[in-house]
Amino acid sequence: MAGLYLEDFVVGARFTSGAHTLDADQIRAFARQFDPQPFHLDEETAKDTFFGGLAASGWHTAAITMSLLVQSAPVAGGLIGAGADIAWPRPTRPGDELHLEGEVLAVTPSRSKPDRGVVTIRCETRNQRGEVVQTMTCPLLVWRKPA
Amino acid sequence: MAGLYLEDFVVGARFTSGAHTLDADQIRAFARQFDPQPFHLDEETAKDTFFGGLAASGWHTAAITMSLLVQSAPVAGGLIGAGADIAWPRPTRPGDELHLEGEVLAVTPSRSKPDRGVVTIRCETRNQRGEVVQTMTCPLLVWRKPA
Repeated sequence: MAGLYLEDFVVGARFTSGAHTLDADQIRAFARQFDPQPFHLDEETAKDTFFGGLAASGWHTAAITMSLLVQSAPVAGGLIGAGADIAWPRPTRPGDELHLEGEVLAVTPSRSKPDRGVVTIRCETRNQRGEVVQTMTCPLLVWRKPA
Repeated sequence: MAGLYLEDFVVGARFTSGAHTLDADQIRAFARQFDPQPFHLDEETAKDTFFGGLAASGWHTAAITMSLLVQSAPVAGGLIGAGADIAWPRPTRPGDELHLEGEVLAVTPSRSKPDRGVVTIRCETRNQRGEVVQTMTCPLLVWRKPA
C-alpha cells in the first residue's frame, strides 16, 4: 500500500488542500437529494429565512471537505474514519472557493492491535476570504509500517 | 411558519423516520463526487481493504440521515444545525434499508435571544437488522412560538 503510515505522522504537522469552488447548481443538486429545505434550494425563498440567502447544506460542506481531504492526506490503505465532531460557524455560499487546512492533533498506537493506531486530525474548511465555514476533528485509523 | 416550535419539544420524546434503501449505484455515485476511495467505488477492489467489500462513505450515511431527518422532524423555519458529533460503529452496505430513530436530549431556551432556543437531539441510523450504522448528536436552532 502506497501512502502514509502511522510512523509518518507527527503531532503539530500541518497540511493544506487544493480548492473547490461551489456554485448554486451544486448547492441545489446536493440539497434536492439530501437536504431539501428552502434555504438550500431557492435563492428567492432563502432571502426570508435565517440564512438570508442561498446557503449550502452543512452536509454538503462536510462532503466537499472529505473530497479535499482525500486529495491532500494520502494515508496508506485509505482514509478510514470512525466518526467526526463538526461545527459550522458560518454558512457556505454560492461562489465560495473552499480549501482545507489540517493539523495532526494526536498519534496514538493501538494497545491491543500492533498493526495500527489512530491519528486524530483537526480540519478547518475556509472560504476565499479565509473565514472558517467548518471545523472538524476526526480520528482516523492508520496502519503501522509493515515490519 | 408551519411546524414545530421550541415549546413543542419535550425531553425524552422519540420519533422514527421512514426508510431509505441504498444500492451500489448510489454508493459509487456519492463516492465519485465526494469520497473517491477504492472501498467506496469498486466491489472487487473493496474485498482486499479494511471493509472487506463495498461500503458507503460515512458522509453518505450522514447525508441520507439528514434526508430522513428532514422528512421526520418538521421544525418551523427548517432544520438549522450548528454542528454534529457523529460516529460510524459499522459500515453501510449495498442493499441496506436505513431508518432513523431520534430522541430529544435537551431543550434549552436562549438566555440572550428570547425568540429562540436549542433542541439537542440524538439520532441513531439503523439498518434493516436494527444494527446502528451511525449515531449523531446535534444541536438544532428552534424558534419559540410567536407571541
